[in-house]
Amino acid sequence: MPSGIIVDMEFIQSELDRRRPGQGLLTTARNEADKVEILSGVFEGKTTGCPIGFIVRNADHHSADYTNIKDLYRPSHADYTYQMKYGIRDYRGGGRTSARETLCRVVGGAFAKLALRQLNIVIEADILQVGNQKLHGTQAERQSQLEEVIKAVREENDSIGGIIGCTIKNCPVGLGEPVFGKLNAALGSAMLSINAVKGFDIGDGFEGVGLKGSQMNDEFYNDNGKIRTRTNHSGGIQGGISNGEDINCRVLFKPVPTILREQHTVNTSGKEVAFTAKGRHDPCVLTRAVPVVEAMAAMTILDYQLLKQSNKL
Amino acid sequence: MPSGIIVDMEFIQSELDRRRPGQGLLTTARNEADKVEILSGVFEGKTTGCPIGFIVRNADHHSADYTNIKDLYRPSHADYTYQMKYGIRDYRGGGRTSARETLCRVVGGAFAKLALRQLNIVIEADILQVGNQKLHGTQAERQSQLEEVIKAVREENDSIGGIIGCTIKNCPVGLGEPVFGKLNAALGSAMLSINAVKGFDIGDGFEGVGLKGSQMNDEFYNDNGKIRTRTNHSGGIQGGISNGEDINCRVLFKPVPTILREQHTVNTSGKEVAFTAKGRHDPCVLTRAVPVVEAMAAMTILDYQLLKQSNKL
Amino acid sequence: MPSGIIVDMEFIQSELDRRRPGQGLLTTARNEADKVEILSGVFEGKTTGCPIGFIVRNADHHSADYTNIKDLYRPSHADYTYQMKYGIRDYRGGGRTSARETLCRVVGGAFAKLALRQLNIVIEADILQVGNQKLHGTQAERQSQLEEVIKAVREENDSIGGIIGCTIKNCPVGLGEPVFGKLNAALGSAMLSINAVKGFDIGDGFEGVGLKGSQMNDEFYNDNGKIRTRTNHSGGIQGGISNGEDINCRVLFKPVPTILREQHTVNTSGKEVAFTAKGRHDPCVLTRAVPVVEAMAAMTILDYQLLKQSNKL
Amino acid sequence: MPSGIIVDMEFIQSELDRRRPGQGLLTTARNEADKVEILSGVFEGKTTGCPIGFIVRNADHHSADYTNIKDLYRPSHADYTYQMKYGIRDYRGGGRTSARETLCRVVGGAFAKLALRQLNIVIEADILQVGNQKLHGTQAERQSQLEEVIKAVREENDSIGGIIGCTIKNCPVGLGEPVFGKLNAALGSAMLSINAVKGFDIGDGFEGVGLKGSQMNDEFYNDNGKIRTRTNHSGGIQGGISNGEDINCRVLFKPVPTILREQHTVNTSGKEVAFTAKGRHDPCVLTRAVPVVEAMAAMTILDYQLLKQSNKL
Repeated sequence: MPSGIIVDMEFIQSELDRRRPGQGLLTTARNEADKVEILSGVFEGKTTGCPIGFIVRNADHHSADYTNIKDLYRPSHADYTYQMKYGIRDYRGGGRTSARETLCRVVGGAFAKLALRQLNIVIEADILQVGNQKLHGTQAERQSQLEEVIKAVREENDSIGGIIGCTIKNCPVGLGEPVFGKLNAALGSAMLSINAVKGFDIGDGFEGVGLKGSQMNDEFYNDNGKIRTRTNHSGGIQGGISNGEDINCRVLFKPVPTILREQHTVNTSGKEVAFTAKGRHDPCVLTRAVPVVEAMAAMTILDYQLLKQSNKL
Repeated sequence: MPSGIIVDMEFIQSELDRRRPGQGLLTTARNEADKVEILSGVFEGKTTGCPIGFIVRNADHHSADYTNIKDLYRPSHADYTYQMKYGIRDYRGGGRTSARETLCRVVGGAFAKLALRQLNIVIEADILQVGNQKLHGTQAERQSQLEEVIKAVREENDSIGGIIGCTIKNCPVGLGEPVFGKLNAALGSAMLSINAVKGFDIGDGFEGVGLKGSQMNDEFYNDNGKIRTRTNHSGGIQGGISNGEDINCRVLFKPVPTILREQHTVNTSGKEVAFTAKGRHDPCVLTRAVPVVEAMAAMTILDYQLLKQSNKL
Repeated sequence: MPSGIIVDMEFIQSELDRRRPGQGLLTTARNEADKVEILSGVFEGKTTGCPIGFIVRNADHHSADYTNIKDLYRPSHADYTYQMKYGIRDYRGGGRTSARETLCRVVGGAFAKLALRQLNIVIEADILQVGNQKLHGTQAERQSQLEEVIKAVREENDSIGGIIGCTIKNCPVGLGEPVFGKLNAALGSAMLSINAVKGFDIGDGFEGVGLKGSQMNDEFYNDNGKIRTRTNHSGGIQGGISNGEDINCRVLFKPVPTILREQHTVNTSGKEVAFTAKGRHDPCVLTRAVPVVEAMAAMTILDYQLLKQSNKL
Repeated sequence: MPSGIIVDMEFIQSELDRRRPGQGLLTTARNEADKVEILSGVFEGKTTGCPIGFIVRNADHHSADYTNIKDLYRPSHADYTYQMKYGIRDYRGGGRTSARETLCRVVGGAFAKLALRQLNIVIEADILQVGNQKLHGTQAERQSQLEEVIKAVREENDSIGGIIGCTIKNCPVGLGEPVFGKLNAALGSAMLSINAVKGFDIGDGFEGVGLKGSQMNDEFYNDNGKIRTRTNHSGGIQGGISNGEDINCRVLFKPVPTILREQHTVNTSGKEVAFTAKGRHDPCVLTRAVPVVEAMAAMTILDYQLLKQSNKL
């Protein structure tokens, strides 16, 4: 974290509040305060260049909720793979395999956003699609379309995924390291590291697969002394390096695997068993994932801005 | 590179030959021998644990071909972004922005495949789609469908992209590092670092966005003592860690930006100019990109296998 | 941290107690409980493979003690260099420039020691020299010699440094990565990262500078089937890789710069001023530094053991 | 390597010539041209920001010279540790365990020096001591003292080590990363990674172990608006960060282990055998090591200058 950045604690808390459960009908009813305590790296309201240490305690955590999953591998969860990899597994939730881990990303992203403000860089994500339903119209209309799908899915005791779009505005030219550190690879890696993400594309992405070179190429022009492109099929990145246009990417979330229906699986002894999840569970993480996507974008862009500062003496 | 791996030089050269230009009607006519010379890391036919140093010289490289691009920024190339980032640009091609750079990846991937052979891991990529045309049927039928599309595009002096699928078979359980080093993030980063790649997904990916949790979850069962999943919507990765099933991913390539048509752009003085590319250029990189995708998968899997060996004492 | 390691919390706390102030006449009287709270990575008494998160609060921290140093640069402290580098400085102590930071190293080292126990690796450090006084004889005699020097220095309101030796017993053959990651470079870097350390050597080190090759070479012999060396001038490392003999190194600590005498310096406005430190300060850090040296050795050896596990398939 | 640095090939070659064997009586008679061929990263006489690829071929390499060492472990060489670690060993020399590897460091260091020239940073190393003989007086006198010692050692078919001092002048304030990346740790790691180096210290180092805090502290003063220290016991680094004074460090080299005398060792079957090295061998590497020490210092300082450029936005 660069030094000298003004730390707006209200902003940081407000970012956390955006991903908190219990915000309304669409998300789980757990009431976790999620208050962040800064441990290091901030002095008299500014960053010192020291790593930002912080802690957010789990306030409303009932270990008892998890006893029925202690001895089995939930389908499409990390239970089985962790057990095989580490030979031990903390089945109580709240650890690295829990979506609760994304809370730390949001705090980190909030700090990154505060730094990027100084460069006038703005990062905004939004839900593009839930299941097969593409959202369109005003923000209220989109919210309504989203709620309708989620409500139906909840009534079926099922879950649903979707696509979040993210735009980075006013990104400087020159971010991205050639070959293995291309900016698209860095953003892709950042997004694919979020729980439940299974896909990523940039610019026209998979939807533009039918376009030919003559349709896809972004011609340069001189916009009153600034070199810009007339179109932005490239999504703001060419040769792995930002070209100053908006960076647009899409992030695919699978449905959360926890559903309130009976499923079949095996237990830790290898015996096949039936299993039904209990408790409060989001049927759709998209609303809460929006600030997580923004956070990962913000941290990636800040990292690459700092890296860029070392490419010349 | 782990030590003690038997180095099959014929295999390495054959991998290089798969990505070489001049293989037939579908690719460019440049005749570059692409002979690899090993400089270090191999002794008496085995790897020594020392980094593999190798060199492949450019045999058929006409600098004169590039003079007409010296002073302008080709649309959707890296010319502009490199110039802005570094303040200097080697316009002659053959460097880091050239697809020729992928040659090194194929050599690295060939070494990785030789190591993975010991673990019985097999990696195979194939073209799934060219433009809007999904390939189907026998290998000959698929090749015929591909050639038909490319031929039409070539006649239009245009270019076309598409999608390559990659499958990793017999991957051990437990590859992938939690949080930021998830195996899907690592594979995504590897693929998105390839020239012209704009998208990546895993398992059902973007095509499965409409599926609900109850449809998407992969139930475990006991297959004669081995825990397996009945379906594989997850693409072999759960919680960022391989679960032993086939890993399936897709890689999206945009059309190559070099087309034999007039385009508009600006020159290095900022003046708007017209520009028509000359010379021999692939209208479609998919055929040559297949071994590159395999190479990136092989290196990633080998890296994560080695990483895994350090997660317990 | 590898998974499956049994976590002996009493041992971890006892390691912390070894570096705590207030242990007796020889160290400062501050009474900080230094109780470690584990936040993550331990479940049912074993490590899970998740990073070990922990926190140790500052219990006895009087910010008021530091106001007289707020506006000046103490000689041979990090005040000036931090201010120049970051443009901001937390003058209250307790941060990264405080020796209190070594507390975290001791906790990390305690975990590493628990892991190394499984391999029967033992790490022991001791004070070899305080100022010009080489310690010799029994442990009680050495302690007495040390106390005598420190008492005299304390009476002069001065401070003193010295040399700590560290031995790693039963280190496996093969730790160390060639070229830039040699084990001696790794150990040297680890030790030189400790506050106040200004020198490092291994084996005979600087004291053996007069020896010739014929005197310094360690001849191999066959010790009932195990290859060993008859002498150990190399300090257990050859070609940057451990050879199975004891690893011996020395770590040089300068005197702590805080002394209870008037010194001259400049203030943050650049004006020359006189300055006398107040409060409780160790005249000699060697006693408390012993567990820190052991901790850095333990973490380095564990890291390189884990790295070694990836050098073959 | 930052872009835009003017590449003075004559300077690079002259640096290589400084470490070349066959320079006179004091070094080995092997006549290796050591001509460097640049493969990438330089265009029209400037660095492009691309990694500098280069190759220096072994011109005078007689594999036959090494057959008598194929089946045994030379005392204090890396033969045994490499065999144990990797299960395979290239006994022919010229690889990573050969001092010839330092050639690459000198080329890298030459590029770094060219970059540091722009910041007016100057790096100079010199031999301080050979065996027990401290060098003093004019350069010619020092050379004479050195030759005398080496001549005597050569006549005994023995070898000798010594100490090289290195000074970095005009280093900017603020280089060094706190905690584990302190500049002294980085320099120490760099030096300890050189073949045959067994010790490192900075500032007064081990020779100043008897000094008290009141003698060792470097008081600040205002030198016409520039904050400086009256003394430099700290060797230009405080709190792990450069303070703008000269950085002084010492590097200890053990005697080269190859001596033209009979020694005892074991062969690869574990049998004890006698062994006498043949061929041309330096009895003392100090002269050739001077440019290597400078190169490591130059690369470290350049790295940390570039890192520093990212500590603020």
